[in-house]
Amino acid sequence: MTDFFAGISPVTYAPDAPVDQLVYRHYNADEMVMGKRMEDHLRFAVAWWHSFAWPGGDPFGGQTFERPWFGDTMDLARLKADVAFEMFALLGQPYFCWHDADIRPEDDSFAASKRNFEEIIDYIGTKMEAQGTKLLWGTANLFSHRRFMSGAATNPDPEVFAWSAATVKNCMDATHKLKGENYVLWGGREGYETLLNTDLKRERAQAGRFLQMAVEYKHKIGFKGAILIEPKPQEPTKHQYDYDVCTVYGFLKEFGLENEVQMNIEQGHAILAGHSFEHELAMASALGIFGSIDMNRNDYQSGWDTDQFPNNVPEVALAYYEVLKAGGFSTGGTNFDAKLRRQSLDPLDLIAAHVGAMDICARGLKAAAAMIADGGLEAARDARYIGWDDPRARDWLADGTLEQIETAVCEGGIDPEPRSGQQEILENYINRFV
Amino acid sequence: MTDFFAGISPVTYAPDAPVDQLVYRHYNADEMVMGKRMEDHLRFAVAWWHSFAWPGGDPFGGQTFERPWFGDTMDLARLKADVAFEMFALLGQPYFCWHDADIRPEDDSFAASKRNFEEIIDYIGTKMEAQGTKLLWGTANLFSHRRFMSGAATNPDPEVFAWSAATVKNCMDATHKLKGENYVLWGGREGYETLLNTDLKRERAQAGRFLQMAVEYKHKIGFKGAILIEPKPQEPTKHQYDYDVCTVYGFLKEFGLENEVQMNIEQGHAILAGHSFEHELAMASALGIFGSIDMNRNDYQSGWDTDQFPNNVPEVALAYYEVLKAGGFSTGGTNFDAKLRRQSLDPLDLIAAHVGAMDICARGLKAAAAMIADGGLEAARDARYIGWDDPRARDWLADGTLEQIETAVCEGGIDPEPRSGQQEILENYINRFV
Amino acid sequence: MTDFFAGISPVTYAPDAPVDQLVYRHYNADEMVMGKRMEDHLRFAVAWWHSFAWPGGDPFGGQTFERPWFGDTMDLARLKADVAFEMFALLGQPYFCWHDADIRPEDDSFAASKRNFEEIIDYIGTKMEAQGTKLLWGTANLFSHRRFMSGAATNPDPEVFAWSAATVKNCMDATHKLKGENYVLWGGREGYETLLNTDLKRERAQAGRFLQMAVEYKHKIGFKGAILIEPKPQEPTKHQYDYDVCTVYGFLKEFGLENEVQMNIEQGHAILAGHSFEHELAMASALGIFGSIDMNRNDYQSGWDTDQFPNNVPEVALAYYEVLKAGGFSTGGTNFDAKLRRQSLDPLDLIAAHVGAMDICARGLKAAAAMIADGGLEAARDARYIGWDDPRARDWLADGTLEQIETAVCEGGIDPEPRSGQQEILENYINRFV
Amino acid sequence: MTDFFAGISPVTYAPDAPVDQLVYRHYNADEMVMGKRMEDHLRFAVAWWHSFAWPGGDPFGGQTFERPWFGDTMDLARLKADVAFEMFALLGQPYFCWHDADIRPEDDSFAASKRNFEEIIDYIGTKMEAQGTKLLWGTANLFSHRRFMSGAATNPDPEVFAWSAATVKNCMDATHKLKGENYVLWGGREGYETLLNTDLKRERAQAGRFLQMAVEYKHKIGFKGAILIEPKPQEPTKHQYDYDVCTVYGFLKEFGLENEVQMNIEQGHAILAGHSFEHELAMASALGIFGSIDMNRNDYQSGWDTDQFPNNVPEVALAYYEVLKAGGFSTGGTNFDAKLRRQSLDPLDLIAAHVGAMDICARGLKAAAAMIADGGLEAARDARYIGWDDPRARDWLADGTLEQIETAVCEGGIDPEPRSGQQEILENYINRFV
Repeated sequence: MTDFFAGISPVTYAPDAPVDQLVYRHYNADEMVMGKRMEDHLRFAVAWWHSFAWPGGDPFGGQTFERPWFGDTMDLARLKADVAFEMFALLGQPYFCWHDADIRPEDDSFAASKRNFEEIIDYIGTKMEAQGTKLLWGTANLFSHRRFMSGAATNPDPEVFAWSAATVKNCMDATHKLKGENYVLWGGREGYETLLNTDLKRERAQAGRFLQMAVEYKHKIGFKGAILIEPKPQEPTKHQYDYDVCTVYGFLKEFGLENEVQMNIEQGHAILAGHSFEHELAMASALGIFGSIDMNRNDYQSGWDTDQFPNNVPEVALAYYEVLKAGGFSTGGTNFDAKLRRQSLDPLDLIAAHVGAMDICARGLKAAAAMIADGGLEAARDARYIGWDDPRARDWLADGTLEQIETAVCEGGIDPEPRSGQQEILENYINRFV
Repeated sequence: MTDFFAGISPVTYAPDAPVDQLVYRHYNADEMVMGKRMEDHLRFAVAWWHSFAWPGGDPFGGQTFERPWFGDTMDLARLKADVAFEMFALLGQPYFCWHDADIRPEDDSFAASKRNFEEIIDYIGTKMEAQGTKLLWGTANLFSHRRFMSGAATNPDPEVFAWSAATVKNCMDATHKLKGENYVLWGGREGYETLLNTDLKRERAQAGRFLQMAVEYKHKIGFKGAILIEPKPQEPTKHQYDYDVCTVYGFLKEFGLENEVQMNIEQGHAILAGHSFEHELAMASALGIFGSIDMNRNDYQSGWDTDQFPNNVPEVALAYYEVLKAGGFSTGGTNFDAKLRRQSLDPLDLIAAHVGAMDICARGLKAAAAMIADGGLEAARDARYIGWDDPRARDWLADGTLEQIETAVCEGGIDPEPRSGQQEILENYINRFV
Repeated sequence: MTDFFAGISPVTYAPDAPVDQLVYRHYNADEMVMGKRMEDHLRFAVAWWHSFAWPGGDPFGGQTFERPWFGDTMDLARLKADVAFEMFALLGQPYFCWHDADIRPEDDSFAASKRNFEEIIDYIGTKMEAQGTKLLWGTANLFSHRRFMSGAATNPDPEVFAWSAATVKNCMDATHKLKGENYVLWGGREGYETLLNTDLKRERAQAGRFLQMAVEYKHKIGFKGAILIEPKPQEPTKHQYDYDVCTVYGFLKEFGLENEVQMNIEQGHAILAGHSFEHELAMASALGIFGSIDMNRNDYQSGWDTDQFPNNVPEVALAYYEVLKAGGFSTGGTNFDAKLRRQSLDPLDLIAAHVGAMDICARGLKAAAAMIADGGLEAARDARYIGWDDPRARDWLADGTLEQIETAVCEGGIDPEPRSGQQEILENYINRFV
Repeated sequence: MTDFFAGISPVTYAPDAPVDQLVYRHYNADEMVMGKRMEDHLRFAVAWWHSFAWPGGDPFGGQTFERPWFGDTMDLARLKADVAFEMFALLGQPYFCWHDADIRPEDDSFAASKRNFEEIIDYIGTKMEAQGTKLLWGTANLFSHRRFMSGAATNPDPEVFAWSAATVKNCMDATHKLKGENYVLWGGREGYETLLNTDLKRERAQAGRFLQMAVEYKHKIGFKGAILIEPKPQEPTKHQYDYDVCTVYGFLKEFGLENEVQMNIEQGHAILAGHSFEHELAMASALGIFGSIDMNRNDYQSGWDTDQFPNNVPEVALAYYEVLKAGGFSTGGTNFDAKLRRQSLDPLDLIAAHVGAMDICARGLKAAAAMIADGGLEAARDARYIGWDDPRARDWLADGTLEQIETAVCEGGIDPEPRSGQQEILENYINRFV
């Protein structure tokens, strides 16, 4: 045992604890919600990068966190893993996630970095087995190192494409080895800084082929998890190709991958793209590509990705309502791609942030489940579209023509009368559950 | 002749006229640019709605314009047409565009409104023939009347779907009759105010079928022009399904229409969606769905659609650079979906706004053509991707696998070295032409 | 009695009513919170303009509401007042607000409009006395009519300045007569569309003198209520001079009015200016100019003023926390400057929207009061600044010089060590109360 | 001589050079514009931090630049200064700017860092004398080190306040010693991350006293340059107290400093605050606090501070139009607080970026001067306000009362008729000069 979390006890469910105690007040892993354990609904994951690798910098200032494991040696990488699993034990969440760059030191060649990676994967694997914490997903960091400054799969230099492909292979292998349930691609540099030096068509083709190779490799090695793409509109690039759910859908259709790849949707990225989180969830569900979520919010008044822990129950409830309507998670889960504020220096902050977030999600899930059970929202929605049950309307949709319909309208009997959309009444309804 | 533009003479090309004269200083219809007349490159169109139908209101105030043709009679509709063609004669632009609602008074039934519409179409047709001004595109206003408050094709009420389909049929017929070169659909209410009362999947299906019917009808009547969709992310709705070019592309792929429908791209809509105008143009071109443009800007500090006449040459030059790279317009053109500021009350403002805009576009076009001729930008871009000419790189892209590539990387020889993206140098280059 | 609200009963407090009943579940006027009746804390007001005068239009569509009182006659103005007071009776809220233009038809001269206004003021006064509903504030609409298109007090035309001054005088007289508790100025057109035709310095001077005249007149007639300015950054103008609380504070200081004028702060306007609502409230309180609130939200994904009823308890709780910390309302209150969505056509929507909003505010108030009572947030804040209790620190602040302090630092003993800001822990704390 | 810029020759004015040569095509230092040398108008300055200290990182990636002077020794600091002055010699711009942290390595105590600082200041002073390059302004970096994470002057910990005060003293001393023409304060961390742990009132008081001390010290040491505050609304903080020009004006009034402190206005910061650059310039001029500019743009589609070199002539022309109308710079100048894109790795990129920017500014200045000379814009503006020359209107403004004016309006003769604001005509006018 390290002493990083000295003095902090495992977090237990204690709904009636005094206000200043660090307990779960709402998250109760074994409590049944809609016939399933809460833990199995929410499938919480801790992100290695923000929780253990991020130093607390921002564009105007450097490191604020002073973690004993910061540095580039294998010993420190193991220390980091030790502390991580100690945190998992304190929180009791079932999953975690990593990039390769979070867990192993980069070395002076691809092969040497690979050796570091494989060694630490084994180290983590042993800990997973001992402790029971599972891997929600693995992913490759193809954006931090300067070699990726102009993109990974979409780089003008094919050597970077190759480096990236090789990295993804190794990360997929490691994910598979650790029985990870998904493999994620976030194309942080797959975009452009300026159109002036960019060939959009060529870069899309590169990205499409890259994704096809990943899918082919998944099948080859027998990886049963989902391949997930995480949309984001911009930042760090001026424009990122995986802008939002609908953009990625078009991309998948173009490259014949819409049945092979699903979405990992983040609240903060939705906001940056001009959407609500629930919009992106509902849209992915409507398109049949919903996969998993990153449950971290952006500040509504900041124009960049603030990656904060969730704290607004009504918003979170609407998100889980869409998740439940989509049938809940299968391989996906609730990852916190959230970082502490850079002033939150203490180990306690790290624990408390996750506890608060898990409680918020639990409240959101329970409210969403109650709404599903009540059925009021779906009943109102169904009533609104009731006209489409009419046989004539069904015919129009099935095989009508403009001419037939125009004749019907002209000959009378059709003069539509607006009906209330009842938005405020439905908003009130939601508020009875949150 | 009406006296609306009394005292204003036809606008001529006079590059050296004194600063206070109302002339074209850059737009010279017959001047050859890249082997084509400037008029044939730019294909300017005046929008009937903003120029003749918009009363000058905004969300906090009513009508400011006092036009003698405002009102709901056929006589006033003809007067409006008379003034419109007088303006076309003053400006000398080759095209115009309309919605049905701009040109005819709504009557008390669908059939009666249709009669008004057909009568005014004939009236306009006669004037077109006499004067030589052509129709760039027609379109249906499926958003202003209260019957469309919850959508047109995507309305929960199939009667509104029917009304909309019938309207599109008649507008397509009229466009065909007037030899219009395109037919446009802008789905101003095809979206939602709140997800709480919305079935996204159902509404997408309605929109998809609706568009298929329009395409089927086009072929049936032998209309040779393009069907264009105009993307916009929001406003008036909270979310509009035709969010941006990539979103519409996915939608077209879903409904098998990507070879049937093209994009009408507006600068202001691009901005609202978080893109630059040139991004949307380049993307449409890369996806093979570029069609036409609405050349009107939004204020960068306003979060709504301000629809202002263009006034920034460097920006306009980048737009036409993409147009030229896409091969120039075929059926498309440059429409000004631009409204006067509501304080610009005078007939002279209406003329001057168009003259200024046409000159800005002419400057942009000439700068773009000069850059194409110089070739410096394309040469720099080609050089940046030169590595992909390497046979090994081509093989990777054609049929490589992650394993093969990983082996190549691991076995050495691949350690990519970043090269400058030269953004500032390329920006300087542009500024030598604008 | 009109039959507009036929079938709707007065809304009562019934916390345990079934989910589909229209009752107050949280708002209980007589319940004591921090030693004061809930009604006296919240001081709810209904806005005449949005609830009774707004026709449901938006920039892309016209009227959707069909109210029997729409029109320009005095009879209809009285009918509108009758319905308004019927709604007040159903809701039981203690206050309402108006613009002159909401309540009387404009006539063909200033004098004639004034006569209409005075007559309807008397009519409303009689109803107020009979029913007990009070006037929170009156205000003048100096933005809708085309004469105000270039501003009111800041118009380039002094005749508009005069018209506006005369209007404000009459509205202040009427507010005084009806025992209104505040008088509000929102300068919707006090700004500019383009700097190119604007003299900022001159327009600020006009606005400053105008406000001084209003303050002078208040004292002259013995009006004891507060003069309130409502900041908004833009819309309808490109830039509005009363941008936000800090901007208005500088303006008040410039014209010597910081002790005479307070702020009416709206959530939606705060958002448009890039602030959270609680920021604007806390800032006004810190500057000693807090007055009243408009409790209506904007959609976070829309770039314009959506004026929606509040529906997010955690946000509303933070707002009332600032209100309570500022000592609560004195003359101010909670006005709903909120409009129904334009699809919400039914009388029931109008009632339900207000009921939902009042319940949300009641929940927010109770949560805020509980946090005040618990004291945890203030204790944490005090602890954070504890170093400033040190005498040396106090001296630095009182009359230190850079040299003295530099000497102290150089000579050692000062090497500050960062301490956690505990943001997540404080956010968790809030969530125990909402 | 280092060999960093090997192969790059001093940049000369050669307007007709071939398109691919690195020359000034518009900036001609000695050319007379409005009776003053162009160099004396523009007063260009290079920023040490972005050009020599910034490593090319962003929130998702680390260092891309590999400069031979990166590191923390005094030898490397001298090498950095050598290269900087070599760049100044190549560019020939008259000024530069620094933060203390840009030019000296931080050491292990305040006193030791001070010794480093003083030594490098002397080193730079010698080079300045030899080469003739002057200091536009100095400033202190009170935001990068972790000790400033919760603010500098506004820190909850008075020891950080002290450290900051001591640092400012030393930076003011150094600026004075080097005959700097201004001293700038940018309060990057003077704001908050969350209101929950912040005492706005107390922090404002700290900031006010801090600024007073700086002003007192300026007078004490006989520094004749201007004290400049650089407004920015947010980033890195959620909210920065120096939000925009109007906010700072109110702050200066509160602490009695409006005649002692001026504004250093940055285009990118104006954009983040929701303003155009020319708005902030015109507002500062109207309030009598205009000082200097940071001429670097933000990307309009990015919500963070991109700090790019200027490249849009029409925008830059409007900015210099306001500068010229304000009488031009006195102590202020044109600083490029602009960083290369992180992909622009080459020494040539650094030179070319500045050359392009200086040329853009020269074009903007010449266009602005031509508009001033023509006088058309000012004439139109004067005509718009002509009504205020009327004696009755002057009286209203001087000492009118609401009653007098209401009587005048009621008794007739006043019924204002709107006049066109001519925005498009004025925009066309501008485009004749750019």
